[in-house]
Amino acid sequence: MKETFVKELKKIELKSPILIEGLPGLGLVGKIAIRHLVKQSNAEKFAYIYSPHFPYFVLVSKKGNVRLLRGTFYAWKKTGKNDVILFTGDSQAQTVEGQYEISEQILNFAQKLEAKMIITIGGYRMESKGKPKVIAAATSQGLLDKALQAGAEVSPTGSPIVGTAGLILGLSHFRKVDALCLLGETRGYLPDPKSAKSVLEVLQLMLGFDAKPAGLDEEITKADKMVIRLQKIEEKRALEAEETRKEEGKKVTYIS
Amino acid sequence: MKETFVKELKKIELKSPILIEGLPGLGLVGKIAIRHLVKQSNAEKFAYIYSPHFPYFVLVSKKGNVRLLRGTFYAWKKTGKNDVILFTGDSQAQTVEGQYEISEQILNFAQKLEAKMIITIGGYRMESKGKPKVIAAATSQGLLDKALQAGAEVSPTGSPIVGTAGLILGLSHFRKVDALCLLGETRGYLPDPKSAKSVLEVLQLMLGFDAKPAGLDEEITKADKMVIRLQKIEEKRALEAEETRKEEGKKVTYIS
Amino acid sequence: MKETFVKELKKIELKSPILIEGLPGLGLVGKIAIRHLVKQSNAEKFAYIYSPHFPYFVLVSKKGNVRLLRGTFYAWKKTGKNDVILFTGDSQAQTVEGQYEISEQILNFAQKLEAKMIITIGGYRMESKGKPKVIAAATSQGLLDKALQAGAEVSPTGSPIVGTAGLILGLSHFRKVDALCLLGETRGYLPDPKSAKSVLEVLQLMLGFDAKPAGLDEEITKADKMVIRLQKIEEKRALEAEETRKEEGKKVTYIS
Amino acid sequence: MKETFVKELKKIELKSPILIEGLPGLGLVGKIAIRHLVKQSNAEKFAYIYSPHFPYFVLVSKKGNVRLLRGTFYAWKKTGKNDVILFTGDSQAQTVEGQYEISEQILNFAQKLEAKMIITIGGYRMESKGKPKVIAAATSQGLLDKALQAGAEVSPTGSPIVGTAGLILGLSHFRKVDALCLLGETRGYLPDPKSAKSVLEVLQLMLGFDAKPAGLDEEITKADKMVIRLQKIEEKRALEAEETRKEEGKKVTYIS
Repeated sequence: MKETFVKELKKIELKSPILIEGLPGLGLVGKIAIRHLVKQSNAEKFAYIYSPHFPYFVLVSKKGNVRLLRGTFYAWKKTGKNDVILFTGDSQAQTVEGQYEISEQILNFAQKLEAKMIITIGGYRMESKGKPKVIAAATSQGLLDKALQAGAEVSPTGSPIVGTAGLILGLSHFRKVDALCLLGETRGYLPDPKSAKSVLEVLQLMLGFDAKPAGLDEEITKADKMVIRLQKIEEKRALEAEETRKEEGKKVTYIS
Repeated sequence: MKETFVKELKKIELKSPILIEGLPGLGLVGKIAIRHLVKQSNAEKFAYIYSPHFPYFVLVSKKGNVRLLRGTFYAWKKTGKNDVILFTGDSQAQTVEGQYEISEQILNFAQKLEAKMIITIGGYRMESKGKPKVIAAATSQGLLDKALQAGAEVSPTGSPIVGTAGLILGLSHFRKVDALCLLGETRGYLPDPKSAKSVLEVLQLMLGFDAKPAGLDEEITKADKMVIRLQKIEEKRALEAEETRKEEGKKVTYIS
Repeated sequence: MKETFVKELKKIELKSPILIEGLPGLGLVGKIAIRHLVKQSNAEKFAYIYSPHFPYFVLVSKKGNVRLLRGTFYAWKKTGKNDVILFTGDSQAQTVEGQYEISEQILNFAQKLEAKMIITIGGYRMESKGKPKVIAAATSQGLLDKALQAGAEVSPTGSPIVGTAGLILGLSHFRKVDALCLLGETRGYLPDPKSAKSVLEVLQLMLGFDAKPAGLDEEITKADKMVIRLQKIEEKRALEAEETRKEEGKKVTYIS
Repeated sequence: MKETFVKELKKIELKSPILIEGLPGLGLVGKIAIRHLVKQSNAEKFAYIYSPHFPYFVLVSKKGNVRLLRGTFYAWKKTGKNDVILFTGDSQAQTVEGQYEISEQILNFAQKLEAKMIITIGGYRMESKGKPKVIAAATSQGLLDKALQAGAEVSPTGSPIVGTAGLILGLSHFRKVDALCLLGETRGYLPDPKSAKSVLEVLQLMLGFDAKPAGLDEEITKADKMVIRLQKIEEKRALEAEETRKEEGKKVTYIS
């Protein structure tokens, strides 16, 4: 394997599909959102993407089997005008050139499937309180407007979008495919299903999805508990460090 | 995108053009100088350079649109013998090979446009007082002499010129195009419009530009204020650190 | 040398061979196991693999001769149904792409030799007491079952297998060759012949080897002594550090 | 420039030449030795090697001219059986693959010139007292023996030789060219003309050179003075640090 390539598991007919991408990144927002859509829609796995720019390890999957890191495409056949292709994976590319190569290959495959639109999902670092906002950027004003009407806010000028979620938009410029990026606000250092939920709500309004956020709410409760637990651990650690410092102060005293 | 490439936005006729390059680097001297020339001359954007060796993120531009990192070529049609091509961009290449590749592609494009001369602009790290000097190096004695007559000083032997500004000169050796590098003295860690102004003054004398440094003087005033503000912040921080150290000394005392 | 390549030292006829791979990694488990099998079986060296992705130095071999880093294939002609190819080497690849390239080339060569099965050996980081367990993962349930019957345990789901031992399994998926990975538990920071012995015992039961672990037991005794020696050094160092701290405390006192 | 290449400045006829290589490395031993031979022999520059794997900067050369980093080949026409090609340069390659690529290109060029033997020079890290020894490794026993007879010692088994000096030997194995590596003992962190002199003495005995070490002795005197100066600076620094620690001890006391 010298280059990134897509391996199709089965031929599939899709009507005017929309590709929605979400690889791991800040707060795992994109990956959580796609995984949720896959579960809710019972979308069918139909292709993998492999690359020598993914990290050089394999994962043990169920029953002791083993697989390379990869990205997976799922087909979601819907009533209505557009079918949906969902894409997520194990990892971003590990090299600068790999990042460009993988984004190109996703675009190549999307065009082969005659995708009419591409939406990428990611996280946006922000210490937000309350409900995380969704930040949008797009390759066309029309598409951006739809996202804003669905509750997203426009991204500040000059703001960078790192990794595949950004590069796909940048590269789609040469392809004449419309592309939109939705970034959920997140602190970024823990999986953030609440941020993913905000993004999904925008998506649902935009595309008329009927996916319920049932499982997601469970994940959010778990994540909230995790944050509280980590805060307690941190507080305890800070207290102990303080104690240690006091003790050390005393030791010096006893010696003198 | 597997390789660096130039995308022309429109065909353009230029008479014996001179290419002036200034990518971001020390003190942003090159970028500030080119940006200023573009503004003053109303030069017209006519080509982009894209590369998988630029950092793997995109920038949100005006109105929530998105674009890849890139370099931009501007055409400045002048009265007189030579038109001018101005080149600047978002970033230097991120890999060793990318640095060589991008410099080669700029040279390829310059030769396609039948450029007669290339001037690269950058910063030269120096804690200078008063007006920043301009250091020059060139591929021919004749070109260097012109720069010296216009107020530049010759670069010390053995001195390195890092990045695209340097490599273009090194590589132009194989092309039989004359090239000159002008480096403005700068501390380098903050945008330095004063240094860019020094470089522009040399350029104006050399090439008979009529660009006024109006907007640049405003930037210089702002930058000077910024330096003073940063110095005050630093002084305050040093004072507080001193206080903290004293307080900590006292604490130890109370315990004993 | 722009790419990884295999250099055959002599043509060799092998009947339905099994390739067993063990490059340096955690606890050197794979390398120790292969080296031991080579010694016990008097297997014959018949090919090298070279790569520009190995580290850029050479090793001085016996009598002041010099050689590039490489991997070595050994042929072990056995009574019974299958001959065995043993593979080990000096180093893993140093780049992401190199890791994929070298694993591909090993697979290419295995298929050229009509290998029926591939077994990779490595270490699994674990602070285990008593006899190190052997963790298994495989590309087919049948092969995995054989390893479990021979005493291995199934690898936990989601566990990563890093480097060539893992990638060979991942890539063999595209080749329709069955592959198994055996990982010996090890702390990983010292050569661990005890872990290699556990792996070899599983291999012997699976493949009906008659290799005696004679020399290996000697190595284990040496390694155990080394661990005890390092522990003493560490204890002494900790004690001295404690002393130093006390002395420094006193110094402060004398001054006051 | 996408690949390393050799640029010939003039065609040159050499009789059964020996190539002697010395790029910058530990103690600059190789570069100092070659530079000295070039000076003493008035050897003539006849080819450059350029590479996108050299660092991405250019050097200002005499009179404000600029050049890419490169390696240089010099022709030394001698009475006797063999002419000599001397090779040195500005830098080693910056990437793993680049190290292999540059070593290959040097070998390609050596073979084009019908070189009969290649000698590489480098440093060997060792805190030696008195005269630095010269360590040798070779691709043939005959060549190694000649070096030993000329005063070199055989390299310990398993010892690595890093960079171009080592890779050329490793790669020459595929070319059927005899190659020898001579490493001068050096502490390595300062230019070490004394070590280079030891290597040159072995070379002179081996090849019957008549190069006088005149200029080299001057460099050695300078280097010795530099070492003494640095030691004094270091002692002063240590003393001041000690003083500071005492003062800080006192401060704590006064406060209490």
